[in-house]
Amino acid sequence: MVWLTFAITYIDSNRIPKKNMAFEKVTREQDYSKWYNNLVVNADLAEHSAVRGCMVIKPYGFAIWEKMKEELDRRFKETGHSNAYFPLFVPKSLFEAEEKNAEGFAKECAVVTHYRLKTDPDQAGKLIVDPEARLEEELVVRPTSEAIIWSTYKGWIQSYRDLPILVNQWANVVRWEMRTRLFLRTAEFLWQEGHTAHATEQEAREETQMILDLYAEFAETVLAIPTIKGSKTENERFAGAEDTLCIEGLMQDGKALQMGTSHFLGQNFAKAFDVKFATKEGKQEYVWASSWGVSTRLMGALIMTHSDDEGLVLPPNLAPIQVVVVPIYKGLEQLDEITEKIQPMLDALKAKGIRLKFDNRDTHKPGYKFAEWELKGVPLRIAIGPRDLANGTVEVARRDTKEKELLQMTDLENKVEHLLEHMQKDILLKAQDHMDNHITTVSSWDEFKEVLENKTGFISAHWDGSLETEQKIKEETKATIRCIPFDKELVGLEGVCVYSGKPSKGRVLFAKAY
Amino acid sequence: MVWLTFAITYIDSNRIPKKNMAFEKVTREQDYSKWYNNLVVNADLAEHSAVRGCMVIKPYGFAIWEKMKEELDRRFKETGHSNAYFPLFVPKSLFEAEEKNAEGFAKECAVVTHYRLKTDPDQAGKLIVDPEARLEEELVVRPTSEAIIWSTYKGWIQSYRDLPILVNQWANVVRWEMRTRLFLRTAEFLWQEGHTAHATEQEAREETQMILDLYAEFAETVLAIPTIKGSKTENERFAGAEDTLCIEGLMQDGKALQMGTSHFLGQNFAKAFDVKFATKEGKQEYVWASSWGVSTRLMGALIMTHSDDEGLVLPPNLAPIQVVVVPIYKGLEQLDEITEKIQPMLDALKAKGIRLKFDNRDTHKPGYKFAEWELKGVPLRIAIGPRDLANGTVEVARRDTKEKELLQMTDLENKVEHLLEHMQKDILLKAQDHMDNHITTVSSWDEFKEVLENKTGFISAHWDGSLETEQKIKEETKATIRCIPFDKELVGLEGVCVYSGKPSKGRVLFAKAY
Repeated sequence: MVWLTFAITYIDSNRIPKKNMAFEKVTREQDYSKWYNNLVVNADLAEHSAVRGCMVIKPYGFAIWEKMKEELDRRFKETGHSNAYFPLFVPKSLFEAEEKNAEGFAKECAVVTHYRLKTDPDQAGKLIVDPEARLEEELVVRPTSEAIIWSTYKGWIQSYRDLPILVNQWANVVRWEMRTRLFLRTAEFLWQEGHTAHATEQEAREETQMILDLYAEFAETVLAIPTIKGSKTENERFAGAEDTLCIEGLMQDGKALQMGTSHFLGQNFAKAFDVKFATKEGKQEYVWASSWGVSTRLMGALIMTHSDDEGLVLPPNLAPIQVVVVPIYKGLEQLDEITEKIQPMLDALKAKGIRLKFDNRDTHKPGYKFAEWELKGVPLRIAIGPRDLANGTVEVARRDTKEKELLQMTDLENKVEHLLEHMQKDILLKAQDHMDNHITTVSSWDEFKEVLENKTGFISAHWDGSLETEQKIKEETKATIRCIPFDKELVGLEGVCVYSGKPSKGRVLFAKAY
Repeated sequence: MVWLTFAITYIDSNRIPKKNMAFEKVTREQDYSKWYNNLVVNADLAEHSAVRGCMVIKPYGFAIWEKMKEELDRRFKETGHSNAYFPLFVPKSLFEAEEKNAEGFAKECAVVTHYRLKTDPDQAGKLIVDPEARLEEELVVRPTSEAIIWSTYKGWIQSYRDLPILVNQWANVVRWEMRTRLFLRTAEFLWQEGHTAHATEQEAREETQMILDLYAEFAETVLAIPTIKGSKTENERFAGAEDTLCIEGLMQDGKALQMGTSHFLGQNFAKAFDVKFATKEGKQEYVWASSWGVSTRLMGALIMTHSDDEGLVLPPNLAPIQVVVVPIYKGLEQLDEITEKIQPMLDALKAKGIRLKFDNRDTHKPGYKFAEWELKGVPLRIAIGPRDLANGTVEVARRDTKEKELLQMTDLENKVEHLLEHMQKDILLKAQDHMDNHITTVSSWDEFKEVLENKTGFISAHWDGSLETEQKIKEETKATIRCIPFDKELVGLEGVCVYSGKPSKGRVLFAKAY
């Protein structure tokens, strides 16, 4: 296997990765979870750190996240939002102000209690927490920023003229998860959180919906991931929200993944922090709110939607490197010749705005390079050797379909541009097909269990609307209600609950989920 | 005063700002420190938060910081660096590995000791730290990331082929400062920290110098702030560094401000974390390192270098809004007319890539708008009323010199472009003049004290090179050695120490500093 010969890999053991260890190739079919972890580490996306549950996002993985940020940030700004920055720490008294929110996050909070270390009198060179530097009030490391932000908005809002406030923050947050997985669930993660304040309920609800649509459009256009839009059940709502809207993606293994949420917060935080405004008529009213976010979890969704047993598959719109050019040569003289001859081609590709890498490393063989860029998901590989030079051709290989073709160098930049556009569409179509084929309408409890275990994917089923049934289904099958879809066709007409036999107002989507 | 009539201000009291309070205008001469704080808050740059020593960076202030980030990030990438992300937390055992570094930061560390809150059994709705959720090992909130990063690099580096590693991180860091000031000294701040690993001492030293030059070029070109490059004395070095290079700016009040540092770390962190590599010859050697950073402190430098009693002055290359267009009108009909007529002018300005705002708010009078944009430092203001429309002119006002002139609308975009370029140069020149006039060579101790107290600024004086003299001078005058300048002319020839009379190898720069 080519794979085994070139592998410079990081294996997660003792938290700190070690290099060049034996590396066993695992396919999705053999062990999906292990395949995922190997891919994340081997494609240089991320690795576990020395800190329990926290990851290091490596340069290549971070470049992909940066591209996601750039695309989202532009969309936020185009829709009137500005970025700002609020403190990492939330004083405990502020944190507990909105009770449901506090209750929801209290069990997984990192808490700062001291502000100084001192030399350990018993051990030279060691430090201990200085017991005299205890904080009067403990600080919670933000798991989300509603509390600190609404305590700030109180100072910003007096009248309807100060509204709306449309602010976003790119930040790190911490939720002390017991079981962690790279990108999908880590104690610290990176995200954006929007926090908006409005004069009317309608405006806040419209913002909540607009952002959900923005997320879905971004997922589809940039990540090439189709999603289902809907609202969460009361049980699955964000702590402190009146309504949580979500986009749900479907991974290759048939499990769902929540990719973004947008919350209508009603006046809950305005009441908790006493944020009122004077209306045009001079009345004092509480402010209406939304909050919304996506996180580095999207990296997990990206990997599990498109990748294959050879590694990552990146949609061209997201790829930090869209095209890699690999010279095939013997001796540096031949490399110089190739480099000189293809320079106009490289320039033309760059002039088209194509993100290009010319991999002229003399330390590695072409086979190694092919496998490395395959592993890293670069959409197009162009190989060029002496025979190609003579014929005026190059070999172009697509990462997604693994198709190869010989193309004339003439006008290559336009051919490549078209190929990249096609690939973006094809990758989305493939994911769309997979999802469409994995939404199964069931009408009996046996069928529900059968589909969940064997076919997997989303199950469209009637539910009686009760928390009790929702929880029993979860206990028995591990399936949760991913959303009450907005799509009327998915909801359908009234019926009877697949579990309890009680009346149901419409179908909802169940799935096992990450 | 126009100022008093329009002020919607935030005054720092009880940490949480309140709106619309009476606001007293303070000039630089009256109270420089109060002038600074008022400006930061009133120009909507930042404010104190509910968390001790932590600030909220408001949208307008954050937009300026984003522009700084963008300009720096491009420069880092052009010089071969990639971004990555490392954990917020550093386990205490890693933190203490490099002893000098640990010692340097131990006194100002926020420490996480618990990972859960629970309901207070004695008080409904309140939370307490769950004593059963104590961490086995305390986590330090990163004050800087050398420790966590070098513990990671250990896994990345095996041979010379893995070097150099050129990585940068944009992150928040926490240093528990007792006395804080917005932007200049806050418990949490935003920064970038570069961490590079090299095979040779020379390469690491060259990187350290290259980044310092990059910082100085950025400060001059973008921020319009001239700086003096030099190296720190041993006493002022970064904890854990073998050499700290710095750029020092001079504020209007004659105090210096360290604007960026670039550290040659030798093999200190490689030794602390046992990071070795195999050389081409197969020998095992410790890796050489650099680290370097600039922070939201630059916002403070920006404000204190250029601003005046009317508010912020932004160099055009940095301004989020370069040109504001204010219509002068009576009634919405006239506004519509102006809007329609100037649309081609607005389009032409935007097409030039000029960052433009058309302030057509009908809720505020032109006088209010003039003062607001003056306060916020927008470089050019274009005012246009019915008489201008008739004459085909606009009134253009420069923020820096307050000069106004009537310009024909024809070809305005080119005139504006040239004006902005001129302003960028003029603002830099003014700051350069101020600095040049405030570097005073002294040859006696009396002269030293006299200049420090009255003329202020940098004092170029002979120093005997001893820590003792350095500390005594600091105790007696509060002046510190800002740097041993690279500029040979500033250093001059050998002489005798201005304080001790002992031999000196050359002059160094003293100043009081932020």
